[in-house]
This record gives sequence, C-alpha cells and structure tokens, in this order.
Amino acid sequence: MSAAQGLWYDELSPGQSWLSPQAPVDEASVIGFATQWDPQPFHIDPAAAKQTLFGGLSGSGLQTLMISYRLYYDTAVLNGTALAGLGFDEVRFLKPMRPGDVLQVRTAVKSMRPTSKPDRGMVVLRLETFNQREQIFSMDLLALVSRRPPAS
Amino acid sequence: MSAAQGLWYDELSPGQSWLSPQAPVDEASVIGFATQWDPQPFHIDPAAAKQTLFGGLSGSGLQTLMISYRLYYDTAVLNGTALAGLGFDEVRFLKPMRPGDVLQVRTAVKSMRPTSKPDRGMVVLRLETFNQREQIFSMDLLALVSRRPPAS
Repeated sequence: MSAAQGLWYDELSPGQSWLSPQAPVDEASVIGFATQWDPQPFHIDPAAAKQTLFGGLSGSGLQTLMISYRLYYDTAVLNGTALAGLGFDEVRFLKPMRPGDVLQVRTAVKSMRPTSKPDRGMVVLRLETFNQREQIFSMDLLALVSRRPPAS
Repeated sequence: MSAAQGLWYDELSPGQSWLSPQAPVDEASVIGFATQWDPQPFHIDPAAAKQTLFGGLSGSGLQTLMISYRLYYDTAVLNGTALAGLGFDEVRFLKPMRPGDVLQVRTAVKSMRPTSKPDRGMVVLRLETFNQREQIFSMDLLALVSRRPPAS
C-alpha cells in the first residue's frame, strides 16, 4: 500500500484539488510502451514520425492516460476508500506528449452524489495533466467511494 | 507494421463493424499490469480481493481498456490511415475482467464528419469488449482519418 489513508466520501467537496508528484518521460519509455500497446509509426519510429502530423516522435495517448492515472493514484486522494472505478468521460489528448516531458497531474473534485446504497457515493474527479509548458491531457474519472464507517 | 492497409475516410460509413482477434487474460498478467499501473488490493492480492466489492481478483479497468485498444488496433481498421487519436468518450467498465477471461472486441463506426481540412475527417468508433459470457467494457474512440490521396 502506498502513502496515507485517502479521503472518505464525507470528506470530499466539489472544488477541492491536489497536485501529484512528477514523472519524467524519455524516448525509450515512449517507444517501449507503444511497441506493446499502440505501435503506430509516430510512436515508435523517430524517422518516420517526422513525416506525420506530429512532426516527430510522440507518446501514445494511451501512455499519457496511464501515466496520468498513475500520478493521480500516487496522489493518494482515494487511497483505500475507492471501492471501484466506473469509467472515464471526456478523455482528451490535447497536445502530444514528447520525450523529455515531465508530467504532473492536478486532480479536482468535479461533482459528487449519493447512490442508492448508504455506505458509498459517486464521485467525478477531473484530472488535468501538464508538461513543463502547457496542459496536454484531461479526463473525468468516475469512482464509487466509501463513506466513513460508523464508529464501532 | 501489422496486417493490411486500413480504410480511408471515404471507405467508412456508420454501422460498419468488425470483430477483433481474441486475447486471453491470466492471473499473472492481471497482477503484473496492476502492480505497475493501478496497485489496488482487488487487482493485486487474491486474498484481500475476496473482502472487496469484487469478491475476488479483478483486472484493473485500465488493463481492460489497454487490451481492448490493442485488439482494436490488431483489427487494423485504420491501419496507416489514422492520423491521430483525439480522445475517448463514455469509457465504461461494465463488468470486472477476471483471470481466465478471453477478450474480443467489436469495433463499429458510430459517426463521422468532415473537418475544415479537405484531406481528413473525424470518425467516432464504438468499441465493445466481450469475455466468453457477456460484454464487460465499452468506449468511443475519436480519430482523425485520412481521405484517400488523389491519384498522382
């Protein structure tokens, strides 16, 4: 288990936000990830990538998503209190992720609502990912989160 | 490069669909993936997972997404004709992915529209992922796709 206990549903409110640790991305990581998951020329072949829309090697959007999720995870906002992830909305690859980028994620509570079960609530978190210069990625993450258990 | 040339924007129409190859998922793969990307107890610890909402080891939704994307990729619908991925909408982890599952993806053209540039169009593909019993995942994938280049 990483880091400290996360927040219960009762401790969250819309507008709260947190900054993640940072993660560097290098060319070997871009090529290695894409070779396994998304082997398009603009993700795995620096020479061929120059002839594409990207004008040079660009990380797979899936890698941006995965690193962003892991940085969110390491922020530990819902560490041990998340019951399940339901999905993602509005996943957007706003700018290419480039070798040499250092990524950081801002996580914010976008909205929340009770469910039919009294021990949990639905939370929408907004993740925004930045490199050293600009925002490159965003998505909404839908999670079921525990309410604080009654004192026993 | 894998498989054959994919389809140009001009060759696509809403309602077309394709079935992917199949991919088996085993416990080592579930634990290995989650250890790197999403190390929650219900994804990495079979004993602890029994005490959670999932009642046993469940693959990370991120792994379901990644395998689904790779199966879509291997279907080669837009092989060499996809210019860039713009994002995903309505990503939904409908059912847990379990060790022993064999996944297959149905890709369908959901919608398409011209863009301001005459050499490309925007295409929304719907991906639906099934194990041996039921659908477990769906998402919409937004891609920029080349029109067929003029004969030279």
